[in-house]
Amino acid sequence: MIRFHGYFRSSSAYRCRIAFNLKGTPTDFVSVHLRKDGGQQKTPAYRALNPQALVPALEEGDFRLTQSLAIIEWLDETQPGPKLLPADANLRAQVRAFAQVIACDVHPLQNLRVLDCLKAEFGADQAALDAWCGRWITEGLAACEALLAARLATPFCFGEAPGLADICLIPQVFSAARFGVSLADMPRLRAIAETCNALPAFAAAHPKNQPDWEA
Amino acid sequence: MIRFHGYFRSSSAYRCRIAFNLKGTPTDFVSVHLRKDGGQQKTPAYRALNPQALVPALEEGDFRLTQSLAIIEWLDETQPGPKLLPADANLRAQVRAFAQVIACDVHPLQNLRVLDCLKAEFGADQAALDAWCGRWITEGLAACEALLAARLATPFCFGEAPGLADICLIPQVFSAARFGVSLADMPRLRAIAETCNALPAFAAAHPKNQPDWEA
Repeated sequence: MIRFHGYFRSSSAYRCRIAFNLKGTPTDFVSVHLRKDGGQQKTPAYRALNPQALVPALEEGDFRLTQSLAIIEWLDETQPGPKLLPADANLRAQVRAFAQVIACDVHPLQNLRVLDCLKAEFGADQAALDAWCGRWITEGLAACEALLAARLATPFCFGEAPGLADICLIPQVFSAARFGVSLADMPRLRAIAETCNALPAFAAAHPKNQPDWEA
Repeated sequence: MIRFHGYFRSSSAYRCRIAFNLKGTPTDFVSVHLRKDGGQQKTPAYRALNPQALVPALEEGDFRLTQSLAIIEWLDETQPGPKLLPADANLRAQVRAFAQVIACDVHPLQNLRVLDCLKAEFGADQAALDAWCGRWITEGLAACEALLAARLATPFCFGEAPGLADICLIPQVFSAARFGVSLADMPRLRAIAETCNALPAFAAAHPKNQPDWEA
């Protein structure tokens, strides 16, 4: 059984949960509370698993893996269930690029450690942090909308079934709402988010449906 | 012929150049000067190619692709030459995770647009920007060193030949030097960097060997 270390609110862990659900892969969940005990991700035991002291991390026997996109592609390549990446090399590359807009250029800028640093080093208050996060989320999601606008409209980002791009999009849309970012100019993303969130695999992965959820 | 839009100093473009050289893939280079004309990446023509207004971007006929990791995996899957990712699924996943430590959690935090925002919104001076970059580079590279320390020492990050992990590591080591980050506690990364930089494929990709180089 795969052991999965995550946290309800982490966008990266949320991505992995959607992927596990879409693939139908059972996991043994371990909660790593990012705000308790000075951050449970910073303990020596967790750092031995993930030297970045970030969630998520995955264990299967002696095998250990970090980074949500690597985890999701590994899952897709080694586990049964519907494919999360397309078979066509050109389309697969564009799906990865879409996912990386979010996973490289949006989400890491709003990570807890980054916000903590902005507070400590630059005296940023909550309004400044919200503006910081809002700026990168708006820029990134607008680019995602533009990447999709160049393609025929489909129920999911890149076709008739959910995949890696949708898996990255939905947690970022959740986080956009948290930071008060408007998706008014992103009709395609809004429609896809509505479609995804109605599916059990996405709904069950939502932060509020996790055992470690806190309001 | 692949048309590649990049900038000599961009870490993401530098990654792609190493990959092109390792694969032996010829490209037609287009310089996108990030600091000239208010940023050539912000023109409508370039945004039509990459709505993120970031380098790199790739064109081959009608096919367009952004995001360096997506470009490198696409190159590996569609072009001849030595493989840049391992055939074993578990090892391939760990290579991707290593690459993503750099491409997701280090490099985007030191991107030009982020530093410009820190200056404009938080009044950061050059010393504060250097400290900001140094912090994330040190944390990220220390995690990379720890990920490799768990493995048998090899000439390259994950074996006897250079691949995706090395391709991401070398531009980040270049950028570490720019920001005055010490690699004293990272003997494994230092040894790998020395080995890589002695190879023609890496040397030819160095920023100072590009047609758009400026001191």
